[in-house]
This record gives sequence, structure tokens and C-alpha cells, in this order.
Amino acid sequence: MELLLKTRKIDVIVLGSGVAGGHVASRCHKAGLSVALLESHGFGGTCPLHGCEPKKVMADATETVERFNNTSGTGPTGSAKLDWVELMRFKRTFTDDLPDKIRKHYQNLGIQTFTTAGSFAGPNTIVSGDERLEAAHICIATGSTPRELQIPGNGLLSSSNDFLAMPTLPERIVFIGGGFIAFELAHIAAVAGAQVTIVHRSERFLKKFDADLVQRLTGHLEKLGVKFHRNCPPHSIEENGGALLLKAGDEGRQSFTADAIFNAAGRIPALADLDLPAGNVDTSNGGVAVNAYMQSLSNPGVFAAGDVIAETMPLTPVASVEAEVVAKNIIEGPKHTMNPDVTPFSLFTYPPLATVGMLEEEAQKRGMRFDVIHGDSAGWSEYQRIGQTCAGFKLLVEKDTRLLLGAHVLGDAAEETINLFALAMRKKVDVDELRSMLWAYPSFGYAMKYMFR
Amino acid sequence: MELLLKTRKIDVIVLGSGVAGGHVASRCHKAGLSVALLESHGFGGTCPLHGCEPKKVMADATETVERFNNTSGTGPTGSAKLDWVELMRFKRTFTDDLPDKIRKHYQNLGIQTFTTAGSFAGPNTIVSGDERLEAAHICIATGSTPRELQIPGNGLLSSSNDFLAMPTLPERIVFIGGGFIAFELAHIAAVAGAQVTIVHRSERFLKKFDADLVQRLTGHLEKLGVKFHRNCPPHSIEENGGALLLKAGDEGRQSFTADAIFNAAGRIPALADLDLPAGNVDTSNGGVAVNAYMQSLSNPGVFAAGDVIAETMPLTPVASVEAEVVAKNIIEGPKHTMNPDVTPFSLFTYPPLATVGMLEEEAQKRGMRFDVIHGDSAGWSEYQRIGQTCAGFKLLVEKDTRLLLGAHVLGDAAEETINLFALAMRKKVDVDELRSMLWAYPSFGYAMKYMFR
Repeated sequence: MELLLKTRKIDVIVLGSGVAGGHVASRCHKAGLSVALLESHGFGGTCPLHGCEPKKVMADATETVERFNNTSGTGPTGSAKLDWVELMRFKRTFTDDLPDKIRKHYQNLGIQTFTTAGSFAGPNTIVSGDERLEAAHICIATGSTPRELQIPGNGLLSSSNDFLAMPTLPERIVFIGGGFIAFELAHIAAVAGAQVTIVHRSERFLKKFDADLVQRLTGHLEKLGVKFHRNCPPHSIEENGGALLLKAGDEGRQSFTADAIFNAAGRIPALADLDLPAGNVDTSNGGVAVNAYMQSLSNPGVFAAGDVIAETMPLTPVASVEAEVVAKNIIEGPKHTMNPDVTPFSLFTYPPLATVGMLEEEAQKRGMRFDVIHGDSAGWSEYQRIGQTCAGFKLLVEKDTRLLLGAHVLGDAAEETINLFALAMRKKVDVDELRSMLWAYPSFGYAMKYMFR
Repeated sequence: MELLLKTRKIDVIVLGSGVAGGHVASRCHKAGLSVALLESHGFGGTCPLHGCEPKKVMADATETVERFNNTSGTGPTGSAKLDWVELMRFKRTFTDDLPDKIRKHYQNLGIQTFTTAGSFAGPNTIVSGDERLEAAHICIATGSTPRELQIPGNGLLSSSNDFLAMPTLPERIVFIGGGFIAFELAHIAAVAGAQVTIVHRSERFLKKFDADLVQRLTGHLEKLGVKFHRNCPPHSIEENGGALLLKAGDEGRQSFTADAIFNAAGRIPALADLDLPAGNVDTSNGGVAVNAYMQSLSNPGVFAAGDVIAETMPLTPVASVEAEVVAKNIIEGPKHTMNPDVTPFSLFTYPPLATVGMLEEEAQKRGMRFDVIHGDSAGWSEYQRIGQTCAGFKLLVEKDTRLLLGAHVLGDAAEETINLFALAMRKKVDVDELRSMLWAYPSFGYAMKYMFR
């Protein structure tokens, strides 16, 4: 069948139209190359359709409601609620027309778009629907997909995509997992009024964040009604009189009844349908194996960017920097490298929890000589003014240089403060200079000075 | 009478216990010097008692209410109001016990505190109540006071201190002035439900902020009900059947009826009661005249810090850096200088308006070669998610170096974003590097990238 397809030649084939793929396609097209962009899951990819964007729409709404209720009796009057149906309708105004708009945007540029998935049929060949495309350069940017839970009844599980599209809010919700997705969605659901349980395989939640601040945050979420179960691997799921029954923990002895159970046990590179062996594309840790040029180790015509690489962090800003490197290397030849840079990121619960640089245990393991400056900041007037009772920080300061090795912030606007720390780390500003600088007052940036008291 | 007073010798006398004076006193005491700290207006000074702090308590409450109402119908349900009496009660929890607490703090350290004002009785001598103190070093840090309006009926005017302590909210409020104080308090009063009018002597509001963004902000405040009158100098005030009548404009032909009229026409150094000539302390522009060591030009034993100096910006962070310089120069001799540094600051309306570096007209006047990058950012999803319809930015980028000469931001969290720009300016990070960096996503810091599109 394949042999009957006529082969079309093109300069660049991009698989996936998310933050990474879209950028590679646009940049290559702008440089005068002919580009085919393949997307079978809605143009735009995870971030704007099923990830950061719609999640942040919902997280911002929960923050608005919580901040209002936190300050009730101190000026703002009344009590606020989150209306799930309204929220979903609002969310859809950010997402519904996006795939069409984005596809048209690329078409108008002159990029050839395909709504069928592509898979390799040779080192330089992609088959998609009834098309066979050949290109000197192929970029894999198909993103990630939920890691399947290998337990009986896993067909009853919902995904984060399902969560972000639920027309009504289930009464009882269980999240299996203990990372970003579980926490962010659990928080939204709890504020919206659901009974929420997080069931996590191991002891440690949110492994990429500071353990002490995570503990502070889980304590706060417990007050919002979220229940946490540690060391409780999922065992099986079954239907039970209109509800779902999750058995978990040692031999499945613990059971959780819910109206919806979400698989939030991590995501893996979405490579299953690509037939990588046919393209001579090797993998590493389940993702595309690449060198510093973001180029396949086994096929120099293939590049990859974004969540399809297992070794880099699955973050939108990282994907977009990787995409820029890939685009430049396709256009100018493989000479640009991905420089691991200071990478700040944030968990969007309320309060948010943000991180840049090393974790304490990481710095210890590497044998660094450092001081730990940490504290509870809920007593600062910055937080008291807005009724925030959950806030803290931890800074790791290298002894010899007084430079920050890592900064960890829990509290309102942590996602902004962490950017300030990131810039300071990148430009090697030591903590004494940071402390002596002028900042807008009052601001959370200024409040950094209190950390050094 | 004076001659009868016994003279006590001490190392350092500090006049004023605000951000500046308090810091000088603490640092000198810590260095082993004996210190007298004089304060007749409540220990702590303007910032925590009648300035930034209580204002921010109230501004945060208005932001909470506005943000809630801005998002009504998009998830958060209901409508919010600001209860003035509750707000005032809450504000007092931040301020009421502070003077006592702060005085006790200094006493416990071993600093001699006085609740009587001090005035010079010689170059090294201060008289306060029935005490006569002599010191090698005297620091003037008495802050600022409202500039008196020289118009008939000025005794009927209220001050910003009065505003921040009003037990109930007047129905109709007029602010005379067009700067920080007028805007911040007008905004709070309008959201709390008062009919608010700003009557300003000249054409240009908020002279320290970007004119285009100011225009955008005034347009937004007009929608909240604030009325603006430009080129309308105050002429006279009289009582009129239980209300107040302000006559203003050309020959006082415009009249404004109000229940309270606030003098927000700026503040001047609070030096009137100090008898500076007796101390041989010269003034400049109405403030203490100092050299780069923050030392009086005419009396080397006298230093000054904070709002008593007319030439530096009346900002808490500036006062605190000046105080550090003064303390070091008292302790170690005059060798430390005040380095004018990048100074970000913010107006706390909602949305806030923030600035760092040069204004456009300033850069033009200095003959700089620069590009202006500016835009309306209300369409960014960062703002749409929270129903913010008023947002914008302006960046001044030097042509040759690609460095920022100035950055101006209007919108939520502008006071945080401006800190990021300030750090970038201080460390000479050009806009191309700023654009290529990794920031937490989504965040207002990340949204900086959209400015460069």
C-alpha cells in the first residue's frame, strides 16, 4: 500500500504543532524553507489546549475566590464560590476556537498543514494519511501523553485533558499521582467544592520542589479538604453501583470510592505511533535520544524539541528554547547548542510554590558547601494583608561565593519572585548585592530582603 | 531657661524614628555608640503608621474586591463590596500598637528614646523638652509633611493621615493634587463607594510616570467613577450648609461640593521646628543640603537621611539605603557615598503602575538614541484570565547597546515586573538576552517576552 503513495519532497517536516513544533515550523518557513506541519490532536498542542493555559485560567479563578474568602471580614464583604459551569464556559473562550485559528495562521503563512498523524517510513520519510513526504530534516515535537497505569480497570481512568473539559464537577474525585498535575487539579477541584483525595505511590510529593515547603503546602491543602495518602500504589479499579472503586496500597487493602478517578501519575514522550525504528531514530529513557544540537544520535536528519525528550524538563519555556535551537540548526547546520540555563518554574496551587536551581538534597549530594536560609513568611505583612496563612522560603547560599545555588518560594506571586532569583543566579549576583538593592516597595520582590534578616 | 538645663553627652542623636532614623539609630547602637532617638509623632514614622503600610493594606483590599468583581461570571460567583468600617478595623491591627512596640524595641536594645521633639541649640546640641543633648553626630531624619496650601479656608482641609484614619467614608470626596497620594487614595475611596473628584493645578498627572500609561490609567479610573479636573488650581474653601465648597480654576469659577477635601498637593521636608540656623545646617530646595556622604554641607557633625532631603526620591527603599550610608559614615568616618542606583517604584492603584529608569521625555531631552517599544497588553491572556481591561507597557531601548534606558508597566503585578527590569538594568542585561531567558510560565515576568514581539 505504502509503495503506491506518491512521494512529495519538502525541506522540513515537523511532527506536532505545540509550542516546540509550531516554533520550528514558523522559523524554518520564515528562513525560506518549505515546511509541512503535522498535527492530529488539535493545532496548538498541549500547553494552550489541555495544559498550562486552561489550567491557569482555572487556577486564577480559584485564586480569586480564595483570596476573596481569605480576606472576608477585613474589608471585602461577602463570601465567594466557584461556579464550575461558568468557569468551564469561560475556559472554553480561551481554547475552543484555537486549533482552527492556529491551523489557519500556519496555512496563511504558507506552511502545509496536515491533520493526520505521521509516522516514519524511512530515515527521511514520513507517511501521513495518504501522503508520503520526504525531507532532509524532520523534527519530532509530538509532546507527551499520560503514562498508562498498568492496573486492572485502567480503562475507567480519566486524564487531565478530561478534567479540563468536565461539563460538571464530580462530587468525589481521586487523583492517582503526586506531582504537578495531581496537585494543581486537586487544588482547583477542592476549591470548586469537590471532595478530593490524592493517592500517591510513594512517600515524597512534588519531587522537583523543596520538601519542607511541599510539606507546608500539603498541610494547607488539607485545610481546604484535600486528603493525602502516601505509600499507596494503585492496585485496581472497578465499577461499583454507579461509582468507581479504587483499591490501593498493600495488596489493595485500602479502598477509595469516587465519581471520577484521574491518572495523574506522570507523562511520557508521545512516540508510540511514530514507528521510530523505521526512521532509524534511537530513544533514551523513553524519549528521543539527542545530542547537544537537539539532533538524533542515530539519524542526523532528525531533530527533536520539547516533551519528546526525556532528559530535559517538560516545561513550555524549555520547549520554546529547544525549538529555537532546532530551527537554527536546521537552517544553518548543526552548530547551535542547547545551553542548560537557570530554569525557574512554578506549581500553580494557591499559594503557588516555585523553584529555581538546586534542591537542598541535590546540593548536599554534590558536596557543595552552602548555608540554608529558610523560614515561615506567613507573618510578613505582605501576606497578612491578604489573609495568606501559608508562605515560606528556602535559599541555598554557597559559602565561598555567597551566590545562590537554589531558591524556593511558597506564597503569593512566588512565580514572579522566582524570576527575580533566576535572573540573579544567571547574572551571578550574590546575596549581599541582592539584599542591598533597591526594589519597588511594597512588593514581594522587596520582601526578599526579609529573607536575609 | 535653656542655660539652666544640664547638658548630657551622647555619641549620636537621631531626630526622627522612621525607616531612615530607626535604621541609623540601630546600626550606630550595634556598633557600640550611645544613641538618643527622638520622635514626637509616634515611633515608626510615616511609612508604617501613615504611609506605605496602611495604604497598602487598603489598596490590597480594593484589589481583592475589584479582581473578584472583574471576574464575576467567569467562575467566581457573586459581587463584592468594600466595607469601610471593617477595613479600618483591619488596618488598625497593622498600625495601632506599632508606636509602642517600636519604642519598646529601641528601649530594649538600649537606645535612649524621647517622645518630645528636638531642635538645634548649637551645631552639636539638641534641646528636647527639658533635656539638652550634645553629640558629635546628629542625624536629621524627621521625614516630610504635607505642603500647606496657601488658600483661604485651608484650615478646612484634611490630610492623607486623616484619610487613613477615617472612621466612616464620606459620600463626596475631593483630592487636591495629581500625584501618588491623590491617585492612590482616590482609587481606594472610589472602590469603597465614595464619589471622588481629583482637582489638579496643572495638565499632567503623575509626573514621575509615563504619560501614555497615566492616560490609560486615568481613563480606567474614570470608569470606576473618579472625576478628573486638570488645570484647575485651588482658589478657596468654605463651609456651606454642613458640606465644604472648594472653588478652583480660573478666578475660582469652578466649584466642588464635598464632605471632605484632602490636601494631596505634595509633601515637603519636615524641618520647620528644628531651628536649623541654630545648628548651622543649611538647606537646599527646602530640605537639608548634603554632600555625597549624606553629610550637611555646612555642619560636618550633621547627617541627614530620607525625606528631609529634597533631591532624592521620597521612597522607603531609598531612605533605608541612605540610612545605611549615614550609619556607616558615623561609625567609620565619612567615606561611604550614596550611589544613585536604578530605583524602581510603583503606584498602588489597581491595576498598579510602575516605573524604573528614564521617562521618554527625559531620554529625549538628554539626546539619547533609543527605540520605544510600547503597547496595550490588555489582550494578553495573563490579563484576560483575571478580567483586567487596563494594561500597557513602554520600554525605552538604547539603539547602540540594546540596553534598557527605562521601563514602564501598567497592569497586575507591575510592582513585581518592574523589579525584574530594575535588576536587568543594574546588571546591564540587554533586551535580547532578556528575551531569550527562561522564566516561570505563565507569569507576568514571562509575559515580558510578548513586549518584544
